[in-house]
Amino acid sequence: MKRLKYAMVGGGKGSFIGPVHRAAIRMDDLADIVAGCFTRDAEANSATASELGVAPDRVYADWQSLIAAEKGRIDFIAVCTPNDSHYAIAKAALEAGMNVMCEKPLSVTAAEAIDLEKLARRKRRILGVPFTYSGYPMVKLARDLVKNGELGRICKVVMEYQQGSFRKIDFTKPLDKRNAWKMDPKRSGKSCVVADIGVHGAHLIEYVTGLEIKRIAADLSSFAPGNTLDDDASILIRLSKGAKAVMVTSKIATGEENGIRLRVYGEKASLVWMVEEGNYLHVKPAFGPERIYKRNAPYVEGISPVAKRCSRIPAGHHEGFIEAFANHYREFCAAINGVKGCDFPQAREGRRTIQFVDAALESNRFNGKWVNL
Amino acid sequence: MKRLKYAMVGGGKGSFIGPVHRAAIRMDDLADIVAGCFTRDAEANSATASELGVAPDRVYADWQSLIAAEKGRIDFIAVCTPNDSHYAIAKAALEAGMNVMCEKPLSVTAAEAIDLEKLARRKRRILGVPFTYSGYPMVKLARDLVKNGELGRICKVVMEYQQGSFRKIDFTKPLDKRNAWKMDPKRSGKSCVVADIGVHGAHLIEYVTGLEIKRIAADLSSFAPGNTLDDDASILIRLSKGAKAVMVTSKIATGEENGIRLRVYGEKASLVWMVEEGNYLHVKPAFGPERIYKRNAPYVEGISPVAKRCSRIPAGHHEGFIEAFANHYREFCAAINGVKGCDFPQAREGRRTIQFVDAALESNRFNGKWVNL
Amino acid sequence: MKRLKYAMVGGGKGSFIGPVHRAAIRMDDLADIVAGCFTRDAEANSATASELGVAPDRVYADWQSLIAAEKGRIDFIAVCTPNDSHYAIAKAALEAGMNVMCEKPLSVTAAEAIDLEKLARRKRRILGVPFTYSGYPMVKLARDLVKNGELGRICKVVMEYQQGSFRKIDFTKPLDKRNAWKMDPKRSGKSCVVADIGVHGAHLIEYVTGLEIKRIAADLSSFAPGNTLDDDASILIRLSKGAKAVMVTSKIATGEENGIRLRVYGEKASLVWMVEEGNYLHVKPAFGPERIYKRNAPYVEGISPVAKRCSRIPAGHHEGFIEAFANHYREFCAAINGVKGCDFPQAREGRRTIQFVDAALESNRFNGKWVNL
Amino acid sequence: MKRLKYAMVGGGKGSFIGPVHRAAIRMDDLADIVAGCFTRDAEANSATASELGVAPDRVYADWQSLIAAEKGRIDFIAVCTPNDSHYAIAKAALEAGMNVMCEKPLSVTAAEAIDLEKLARRKRRILGVPFTYSGYPMVKLARDLVKNGELGRICKVVMEYQQGSFRKIDFTKPLDKRNAWKMDPKRSGKSCVVADIGVHGAHLIEYVTGLEIKRIAADLSSFAPGNTLDDDASILIRLSKGAKAVMVTSKIATGEENGIRLRVYGEKASLVWMVEEGNYLHVKPAFGPERIYKRNAPYVEGISPVAKRCSRIPAGHHEGFIEAFANHYREFCAAINGVKGCDFPQAREGRRTIQFVDAALESNRFNGKWVNL
Repeated sequence: MKRLKYAMVGGGKGSFIGPVHRAAIRMDDLADIVAGCFTRDAEANSATASELGVAPDRVYADWQSLIAAEKGRIDFIAVCTPNDSHYAIAKAALEAGMNVMCEKPLSVTAAEAIDLEKLARRKRRILGVPFTYSGYPMVKLARDLVKNGELGRICKVVMEYQQGSFRKIDFTKPLDKRNAWKMDPKRSGKSCVVADIGVHGAHLIEYVTGLEIKRIAADLSSFAPGNTLDDDASILIRLSKGAKAVMVTSKIATGEENGIRLRVYGEKASLVWMVEEGNYLHVKPAFGPERIYKRNAPYVEGISPVAKRCSRIPAGHHEGFIEAFANHYREFCAAINGVKGCDFPQAREGRRTIQFVDAALESNRFNGKWVNL
Repeated sequence: MKRLKYAMVGGGKGSFIGPVHRAAIRMDDLADIVAGCFTRDAEANSATASELGVAPDRVYADWQSLIAAEKGRIDFIAVCTPNDSHYAIAKAALEAGMNVMCEKPLSVTAAEAIDLEKLARRKRRILGVPFTYSGYPMVKLARDLVKNGELGRICKVVMEYQQGSFRKIDFTKPLDKRNAWKMDPKRSGKSCVVADIGVHGAHLIEYVTGLEIKRIAADLSSFAPGNTLDDDASILIRLSKGAKAVMVTSKIATGEENGIRLRVYGEKASLVWMVEEGNYLHVKPAFGPERIYKRNAPYVEGISPVAKRCSRIPAGHHEGFIEAFANHYREFCAAINGVKGCDFPQAREGRRTIQFVDAALESNRFNGKWVNL
Repeated sequence: MKRLKYAMVGGGKGSFIGPVHRAAIRMDDLADIVAGCFTRDAEANSATASELGVAPDRVYADWQSLIAAEKGRIDFIAVCTPNDSHYAIAKAALEAGMNVMCEKPLSVTAAEAIDLEKLARRKRRILGVPFTYSGYPMVKLARDLVKNGELGRICKVVMEYQQGSFRKIDFTKPLDKRNAWKMDPKRSGKSCVVADIGVHGAHLIEYVTGLEIKRIAADLSSFAPGNTLDDDASILIRLSKGAKAVMVTSKIATGEENGIRLRVYGEKASLVWMVEEGNYLHVKPAFGPERIYKRNAPYVEGISPVAKRCSRIPAGHHEGFIEAFANHYREFCAAINGVKGCDFPQAREGRRTIQFVDAALESNRFNGKWVNL
Repeated sequence: MKRLKYAMVGGGKGSFIGPVHRAAIRMDDLADIVAGCFTRDAEANSATASELGVAPDRVYADWQSLIAAEKGRIDFIAVCTPNDSHYAIAKAALEAGMNVMCEKPLSVTAAEAIDLEKLARRKRRILGVPFTYSGYPMVKLARDLVKNGELGRICKVVMEYQQGSFRKIDFTKPLDKRNAWKMDPKRSGKSCVVADIGVHGAHLIEYVTGLEIKRIAADLSSFAPGNTLDDDASILIRLSKGAKAVMVTSKIATGEENGIRLRVYGEKASLVWMVEEGNYLHVKPAFGPERIYKRNAPYVEGISPVAKRCSRIPAGHHEGFIEAFANHYREFCAAINGVKGCDFPQAREGRRTIQFVDAALESNRFNGKWVNL
C-alpha cells in the first residue's frame, strides 16, 4: 500500500485528540505528517511543527492558507479543531480535492452535514469521521454476530455513555481550555453532551444493530455550574423494524471515566460490550451459558474477518483506544489507496449523528415530544 | 422478642415466593406457621399443610374462611397470591385486626392502595410490602451514605431491572403456571412488567435517594408472543429537588437473570449497587479512587447501624435473596412486637409504587406525555 | 421425609458457626432443636436455650451429660465447639448410637480421625463434616463437568483460600474470643491456618477433581504478632494420575474477606469457581469462547441433577453461605432418613483433610520435604 | 529530545514481538528504523525492509554484518531473535559501542547475563530488557504505593502468569514457527515456561515490592505432548526481609490468555494488579473499603510522577500492551539522550531473572530443594 502524506489542522499543545490522531496513524505507519496549522498561537504552532518534524515552510498561520498551499501535495487532511470550524474546513478541503478525516461532530447543524455528504460524493473524495468505538474489534464482532442472526430479531437496545468530566472541574477557578470550549455555545454549537458523546452512542446503535434511529424523545438537562448547554440526557428511541432503545449520556455522571456500555437484546440472545472491558464481548443466549468472546481468539476470524483484521496482537495482550482509532485510519488509508469495502465511519455516519443531535434538541424544546430524524 | 404465629394465603406447590416467605421467616425463627390456605386444590392444600406441620383443622378451602376462623388467633397473615386478590385479602385481614405482609404489587389500582393505606392507619395495624431489595444491607448502606451527604446533591439516577424470563419460554407449549398468570390481565392486572418488577425499581429510587418521583413519561411495549400486557418499559422520571432519573425494565431482556442495577449520581460522588453482586456497594468520588464497601465490614456500622443489624455472617461469606427477605420480616416482626423505627416497606411504599404503575400506563396511553404521580 | 430432632454442643452467644448450623437446618425446616449444651457459662447456656425454645430440662452443663441423657431421644447431634473437643464429643456420641454433624477439623490428629471413621462405620452411624463449600451448587456442577469429561485429563489445580482476618485485629487489645482460641495451640491444635481453612481447600481439590492428594511440600509461616501457629501457607501438591496442584492459604492476607478461588486446568478446558461470585462457574475451553454457567439455569439439571436439587430459588436471585450449608444438612438429613447416594462430606473427607494437615506440618518441620498423605 | 536511529535484528514476517517493538517506538515517534536483518530468508528480509522503508543497502544477511556496517551510524539496536542468539548479538553490539534493547530472556545462562551486565557497564552503554509489564502505569503506581509505605511491611506475594498457549495447538499438525522454537532446547535454552514468562513474574515481584528473591524451591512439569522442557511451574520463594512468595506459571493453563495477576499482602494493606484489567490497581486496606485506582486519574500524579508521565490519554480511554512497551522505549530513549533516573528494566533486571531461571532448574533437578539465587 502506498505510504501517504497528510496535514493536520488543530491538535496543538494541550489538545487531547490531535496526538491521538497522530499516534493512531503512526501505529501502522501508513502516513507521514508533512504540513500543519496546529494552533493560532504562532510560537506554539512552530514548536509543535518542530517536534513533529514538519518543515517550517509547511506550517501555516490559518487553515485557509494551508488548504490553498497544500492543494495537490497531500493525500488527506486531519481536522482536529473545536466543533464550530469543522464544517468550513471540511468543505474547503473537499472543494480543494482533498480527502478528509474530520473529528466528530461533523458539523453544528444537520443541514451542514447533509451539504458535506453531498460535496464528498460529488468530488469523489473520502470524508471519514473517526467515531472511535466502532473501531474496536469486538464492536465489529458484535455487528457481525447480529448480522449473522445470532441474536435473532433485535427488540431493545440500551446505550450508555456516561462521563463525570464536568464533576472533576474546580469551578472556583477559570475553566481549563478543553472544558471551556465544550461549554461555550460559540465553539461547541447548540449542544454539549449530545453533540460531544451522544453522537458516539447514536453511531454505535446503528452500526451494531444495522437498524435506523427513526424517532426520539429527549430529556436534556444542564446541571454543571454555569453551563447553559445540555450536560445530561435521557433519550427514548424508536428504531426501524419495531425495535426500541434508550440512550443515557452525561458529563455530570460523577465518578464515571468513559462509561460506554452497549446492550442489545434480541429474541434469541443479547450482547453486552463495555469499552472499559473493550477486549471482550459478552453474548447471553436465552437457553445456554453466557459466552465471553475475546479479541483475536482463534474463533473470531470465522465470524468476523474484519474483527480479525483489526487486531494486531494476541488475545490477552490488550489493545485500547489508540489501537481502535488506528483501525479507522487503516481502513481510511486503504480506501484512499483504492481498496473496496473498507469499514470506517464516513459522511453518512457523520450526518446521521448530527440529525440525532438536532432531533434531541427539538424534542427537548417541546417537552419531550417525539421527533423524527 | 415474643415468638409470633402466622397464617399464609397462597404459596402452595409450584409457587416461587411462598417458600421464600417461609424460609425468610425461619431464617431468624421469629414466627411459626399455624394456619394456611395454600391453593384452591384441596388435596394439594392438605399436602402443603402437612409438609409444613400445619394442623389439618387450620387448613382452609378459601381465604375468607381462614380470616374468619383465625381472627384473634394469629399475629399476622402473609399474602402470597397473584396480584388480583391482594387487595381483597389484605382489606379483609386488616378489617379483622390482623397485621399483614402482602406481596407486591399491593393492589391493581392506586385507588385500592390508597384505601389499604388508610385502613391500616385506622385499624392501627401493620401492613408490610416485602420489596426484597431494600432488605439488602448494602442498599441500606447506600441510603445512609446519601442521607449523610456523601454524594452531595443528587442529580441523576439510572435504575435498571432487566429480566429475560419471557425469553426462556417455549411458546409452542402451554405456558407454565407462573408466566401464564403474569401475562393474564385477569390475574396480573393492567400491567405486567411495570407492576411486577418496575415497582421494585420505583421503590429503590425513592428509598435510596430520599427523593420523590414527581412525574414520568413512559414508553411501554409488548414483545413476547401472545402477550397483551407491557413486557418492556423505558421511563423518563422527574424527581423532587430537580433531580432526574431513567428506568429501564423488561421481561424480554434475553440472557438477563435478575439484572437490578442502581446508579445514583450526586455532585460529589456516585454509587452503584447491583443485586447480582449484592454484597458490595461501589462509591465513586469525583476526586479520589473508587471505593468498594463490603457487607458487614468493620466500617459499616459507623455509617449505617441498620446495615450492620441486617447482616448475619461475616464479610466474604455471602448473603443473598432469602437473607434480604428475612431482614424485612425481622423488622416487620419487631414492629409487631412494638419496636419503633423499624426499617421495612409498608403501605406507603406499596401505594407509591402502584401510583407509579398507574402513571406509566397513562403516559404510555398518551404517547409518552408527562404524567404526575 | 421424617422431621428430625437434634441437640447442639457449642454454638452459644458470640459463636459464628453455631447460628449458621441452626439457620441452615431451619432453611428447609428438616429438624427441630430439642436439647443443647451451648456454653460452659450456665447463665448464657440457659439464655441461648430459651431463645431457641429448648426446654430447660434438656439444657446441660456439659456435653457428657447431654449425651448420656439424650441417648435414644434425638436423631443427631451438631458439634460446634473449638477443635480440641471435636474428637471426644464425636466419639462419645457415635458410641451412644447418635448420628453426628461435627465441625471441621474433625479432629486434631490424623489418628483420631481414622478412629472416628472406623467407629462410624462400625456403629453404622452417619458422621457428617460440613465443609461448606462443596455445598454450593456450582461446585457440584464443577465436579460433574469434570466427571463428564468436559475438561479432559486434569493437569493442574490452583487452590486459594485467602483471609485477612488476623490483620483486622487490634493487637494492642486483648484478642476477641474467636481469634484467641484459633491462635491457642490448646484449643486449636497444632495448626491454625491449615487446620482451619486449608482443610476446605484440600477437600475442594479432591471433591471437584475426583483425584487424590498424594504428596505435599509445605512452607508455613507465622506472621501475626504473638501467633505461634501457622497463619500463612504455600503448599506444593502431587495428585493422583500425574496431576499437580498448588495451595495458597492465609489468615494474614490483608484485605481478603474469604478469598476462595479454585482453578482446575484440564487438557480440553479449565474451570474457575470463586466463592465471592459463588452463583457462577466459569469454563474456559481451549478452543471457543469462555462460558459462564449460572446457578439454577435451565441447562444445569441435565449436567448435574444434584446441582439442580441443591438450588432453591431462580437464577439471578442469589443464594449464599447459609444456603450452601443448608444443602449439606439436607443431604445429611436425607441420609438419616435412609436415602441413598446423598452428596455431603463425611468421615472419609474429615479424615483425608486431617491427613493433609499432618503432612503439611511434617513437611514444614523438614524444610519443605515431600511428605506422603 | 534528539530523534534517534535504530536497527533491528529479527522481527520479520510472522514475528509477534518485532512489530510490537516497532509500533512501541512509533507510538511517541522517538526513533526511526534505518537498518535491519529481519530474517535469514533473503527475500522475506528485503520485503520487510521495503515495507518499513529501510534502504536496501542497509538490509543485512546476518547480524554480524549489520553490526560491522552500522557501527557508529545508529543510536541503538533492537534484538528480537529467539533466545539462543540474544547473548552473542547483545555482546557484539555492546562491544561495537551500541546501545541495546534486547528481548528477554537476556541470555540462556546466568553466567552470560552477568557477562553482559559487566560489559554494558564497562562500555558505558545502555542495555535495556523490555519486561513489558513494569511499563504499565499502574504497576509503577503499585511500586510507588509500596515504596511510600501504604502497605506497611510486605509479608506475602502471590504471582501468577498463566497461559494456555500450548493448549491451542493442534499437535496432529506440524508446530507453528513460534511454538516450535519455544519447545526446542536449541533455540529456547534449558527452560521454556520459566525462561519465557516466569522471568516476567520474577521481575514484577522485585520491581513492585523492592525486595530481592533470595531462595526458591521449584516444581516443574512438562505436560504438552512432545515437549521436553518445562511448561508448567509452581515455585516457592523466600524474599528479603522475611517475606515469602509463590509463583504459578504455565503454558498449559487451558483457557488462560495472558493471566498475569500480582497480589502483594502487607501488614496494612494489600494490592492486586491484573494485566487483563491493567488500567486499574486495587488496594485493600485492613480497615476500610477497597480502593480502585485508575490510570491517569487526577490523584495518580501526587503518588507516582512516573505513572503519570507514562500515561498518554485520559482515564477511561484504555491503554494496553503496546503503550506499556512504548513506555519502556520512551524511558530507554530518554536515557540514551542523557536523561537521569529513567525507569525501565536494564541489564541488572535481565541478569536477576536469568538467575531465577537457573535456580528453578536446579531446584527441580533436586526434587524441590531450596536453591539460592
